[in-house]
Amino acid sequence: MDNNKGWREQLRIIIFQTDTVAGRRFDKTLLLIILSSLVVVIIDSIESIHRDYAGLLAYLEWGFTLVFAIEYGLRLYCSPKPLRYAFSFYGLVDLLAIVPGALSLYYSDAQYLLIIRIIRMLRIFRVLKLGHYLKQANYLLAALRGSKQKIIVFLATVSTLVIVFGTLMYVIEGPKNGFTSIPIGIYWAIVTLTTVGFGDIVPKTPLGQMLSSLVMITGYSIIAVPTGIFTAELANAMRGEQLEHKCPVCAKNDHQPSAAFCARCGNALFPKDENKA
Amino acid sequence: MDNNKGWREQLRIIIFQTDTVAGRRFDKTLLLIILSSLVVVIIDSIESIHRDYAGLLAYLEWGFTLVFAIEYGLRLYCSPKPLRYAFSFYGLVDLLAIVPGALSLYYSDAQYLLIIRIIRMLRIFRVLKLGHYLKQANYLLAALRGSKQKIIVFLATVSTLVIVFGTLMYVIEGPKNGFTSIPIGIYWAIVTLTTVGFGDIVPKTPLGQMLSSLVMITGYSIIAVPTGIFTAELANAMRGEQLEHKCPVCAKNDHQPSAAFCARCGNALFPKDENKA
Amino acid sequence: MDNNKGWREQLRIIIFQTDTVAGRRFDKTLLLIILSSLVVVIIDSIESIHRDYAGLLAYLEWGFTLVFAIEYGLRLYCSPKPLRYAFSFYGLVDLLAIVPGALSLYYSDAQYLLIIRIIRMLRIFRVLKLGHYLKQANYLLAALRGSKQKIIVFLATVSTLVIVFGTLMYVIEGPKNGFTSIPIGIYWAIVTLTTVGFGDIVPKTPLGQMLSSLVMITGYSIIAVPTGIFTAELANAMRGEQLEHKCPVCAKNDHQPSAAFCARCGNALFPKDENKA
Amino acid sequence: MDNNKGWREQLRIIIFQTDTVAGRRFDKTLLLIILSSLVVVIIDSIESIHRDYAGLLAYLEWGFTLVFAIEYGLRLYCSPKPLRYAFSFYGLVDLLAIVPGALSLYYSDAQYLLIIRIIRMLRIFRVLKLGHYLKQANYLLAALRGSKQKIIVFLATVSTLVIVFGTLMYVIEGPKNGFTSIPIGIYWAIVTLTTVGFGDIVPKTPLGQMLSSLVMITGYSIIAVPTGIFTAELANAMRGEQLEHKCPVCAKNDHQPSAAFCARCGNALFPKDENKA
Repeated sequence: MDNNKGWREQLRIIIFQTDTVAGRRFDKTLLLIILSSLVVVIIDSIESIHRDYAGLLAYLEWGFTLVFAIEYGLRLYCSPKPLRYAFSFYGLVDLLAIVPGALSLYYSDAQYLLIIRIIRMLRIFRVLKLGHYLKQANYLLAALRGSKQKIIVFLATVSTLVIVFGTLMYVIEGPKNGFTSIPIGIYWAIVTLTTVGFGDIVPKTPLGQMLSSLVMITGYSIIAVPTGIFTAELANAMRGEQLEHKCPVCAKNDHQPSAAFCARCGNALFPKDENKA
Repeated sequence: MDNNKGWREQLRIIIFQTDTVAGRRFDKTLLLIILSSLVVVIIDSIESIHRDYAGLLAYLEWGFTLVFAIEYGLRLYCSPKPLRYAFSFYGLVDLLAIVPGALSLYYSDAQYLLIIRIIRMLRIFRVLKLGHYLKQANYLLAALRGSKQKIIVFLATVSTLVIVFGTLMYVIEGPKNGFTSIPIGIYWAIVTLTTVGFGDIVPKTPLGQMLSSLVMITGYSIIAVPTGIFTAELANAMRGEQLEHKCPVCAKNDHQPSAAFCARCGNALFPKDENKA
Repeated sequence: MDNNKGWREQLRIIIFQTDTVAGRRFDKTLLLIILSSLVVVIIDSIESIHRDYAGLLAYLEWGFTLVFAIEYGLRLYCSPKPLRYAFSFYGLVDLLAIVPGALSLYYSDAQYLLIIRIIRMLRIFRVLKLGHYLKQANYLLAALRGSKQKIIVFLATVSTLVIVFGTLMYVIEGPKNGFTSIPIGIYWAIVTLTTVGFGDIVPKTPLGQMLSSLVMITGYSIIAVPTGIFTAELANAMRGEQLEHKCPVCAKNDHQPSAAFCARCGNALFPKDENKA
Repeated sequence: MDNNKGWREQLRIIIFQTDTVAGRRFDKTLLLIILSSLVVVIIDSIESIHRDYAGLLAYLEWGFTLVFAIEYGLRLYCSPKPLRYAFSFYGLVDLLAIVPGALSLYYSDAQYLLIIRIIRMLRIFRVLKLGHYLKQANYLLAALRGSKQKIIVFLATVSTLVIVFGTLMYVIEGPKNGFTSIPIGIYWAIVTLTTVGFGDIVPKTPLGQMLSSLVMITGYSIIAVPTGIFTAELANAMRGEQLEHKCPVCAKNDHQPSAAFCARCGNALFPKDENKA
């Protein structure tokens, strides 16, 4: 019994932690298996490969599903609070990595849901030196959070532009030039405003081409807006340690990093003598 | 009479204000109706849907126009200064949301003007917490205002480039390769410079392809210009906490950031000697 | 004689200067004529218009050429140093605005050279409030000058990438898939790297598509480089008044704008007492 | 013998160094030959030129290979440590510039490997004033190094998006609309997300077009991320003038910008009291 508990504890350390050699090896192996399973799904979709190796690939996929099922079982078994794990983000993702394999017995398209296993690749950041990446990702997230409201204003503007331009193009060009409905017009406006420009639908009337030119220049110019927002916020987040301490005399804040004296009134920002006295 | 006035006042609060529960509910309902009316216009343009549901959708559209007409009437009725409302920006937009519905009796294309109702969606910012978004939109507008003259210089340069490149391509490629006129050449130059690249008109002569390469690299490089302008201005606008401290001598406020002496009278804003004495 | 000289002087003020009412009116009229002359060249290239109005447009073009010739003569006549004007930038542009009109008698394509008149539009900045735009254009030019060497490094890298990728695609895809020669491969690489993507030549082999993906992601990522360079330089140029004055005690420079005291050692950057003594 | 040594030394100075007139002339001639050799490879791939001048171009190519072989021999001969040169980066590149010429006797495609000679063009920076460009390239590299981890996070996100979107499009559109396999779907997702938009494969079902719109707007928005990262880092690299002043107590230099006290011993770097006394 005691022995059993020790074995469970040891298994938990291997499976859930990354600071032991065995734990890192386990995570690396797991990543490799996830990657292989993704590759199998992807190459199975290629006609010529499916024709020749459908059987082999199906066996492999079943094998992977089995491995993941066993792993899921072990995680439940050795977790101190199995229910909490089962309903955590990672727990649900681990479950979702198994279910489609079972479903694909009944619905043949379900196997493509296996691509959801890609989310499990997030564990890769646990294997790499986590701290560094976490800090960088935090900078990016801080910048995104800081620019959320500006981004909403921006997206609302873009949506409005796209609907108006799409409708106008539908009225101007009409179904005979490929703009068969307003939704198609909106799709075209998105293709054009984002400077993707597939070319499957193109304006053919002079008026339509003039309006298109306007849409393109708009798209080319407003690409500056999200970039500007994000850059300004990121610079802010990285300059973060920019001194927030208020000058005790003139209350100025936003000093240069590691400033010792207020750049405005020349008084010490952190009076030393008082401190020492 | 008094009761009537009270009822009008209550109606005004519901319709024009958003800080009561009823007012917020009214605005939310209105937004939903506007959105539905837009969706009806959009899906009515899809051939297969129009064939089957033209009648139903026409009834719905009439219903929405009626609702908006009643709402417009109520706004006029309960507004303390009806004329001022009628000629305000929102008043005109509200009127424009009704007129196309009536016009579409005579001109069938007029119904697409209904898309103008999208402007009414601007009210959405009244329902969301206005203050936050207003501040963010102000930052964006300040950045745009600050970069106005730079943007004009930039747009003038782009226009010149586009006209010169378009004419050159017309001369080089000629009508047999799709460049049927100078305006078409300019249209192509815009499509290429903005990196949209539809591919409906492409250079076919070696000289044309060399010039195209130049246009593309130019477009790829000068995309940096509006982004740079906007980012620099936005960073400025976000940093720009103009000094609100009053000068102890002449009481001027709104100084430059980290100003130490008043820009008007030259006296120290935060006297140092006094402090130390 | 004296009267003649006075008349010449008055003419010079009208033609060459913009600070009198007559001078501004002259420049505005000239801009209008230049614009009209450009419009005539552009619309004359449209097949259907050329068929019906070729004669009228030719007369108009001749009229414009005559007007510009007279204007050029007057400029030479009333300029205090005619030769200096004739060989100045504006003088040469003014001459070039006339020559193609005469050439087009012999070579019919020469009329498109008339598009060179667009350079005369530069005068527009003289009519607008010059000062403001000049300052803004100076910021942009300063940023460009500052980033010149970085841009050269960047363009050298892009050229190398484009040649290598173009050659690889020619070897991989070959003439049967549209990559008929290395120059065509390079043209394709430019189209793809700049994210224009015409779609006239596209990879068809799996290997070619994988390499294309690499080219596209490279292009998508390195668009950041010119933007970053330009933005950083522009921010520098705009922050230009960032204090270059060295602290008399610790020699620190690069202070916050309008800093009065050194943020590092707290000493006054511009000692006032000494000054007053 | 002594004379021989002097001659070798003189040759070494000409070939390996750039600060003598002869050395610079040698490097410039070499660059010209490399460039010519690249041009020959490139134009030889054009069908019409190859038909008429194949013989001449082959002779030229052989000539260039001979010149490079002699140059390589001389470098080995006059280098003080031939082996060290042979295995240095430049030594290997110089060897690679010869080998494909010999290989092309047996494999006709090997001649395209000659394009590797472009790497030799790196020497161009030795001819230009090296110092300036090196400093600028260092700024760019510092910015890239600083943003390495953020870029990895970004690329991981993009890869995930591209695989998920590609699979979804394969399931939604299917082989009949050109999405013949998941790899093709991923290729399409890259083409679309990077805003290249060839248009060789386009969505045709309404659901596919909606998902495409999402992909395009995502691509259009996240272009901000690498730009923002790079700009913020570059601004940092350009601002970062680390303090070179030695601490008067412990002599540490290389302090943070605007540091006032030594980070190692805590003493004031620029004592204030002494100054005032």
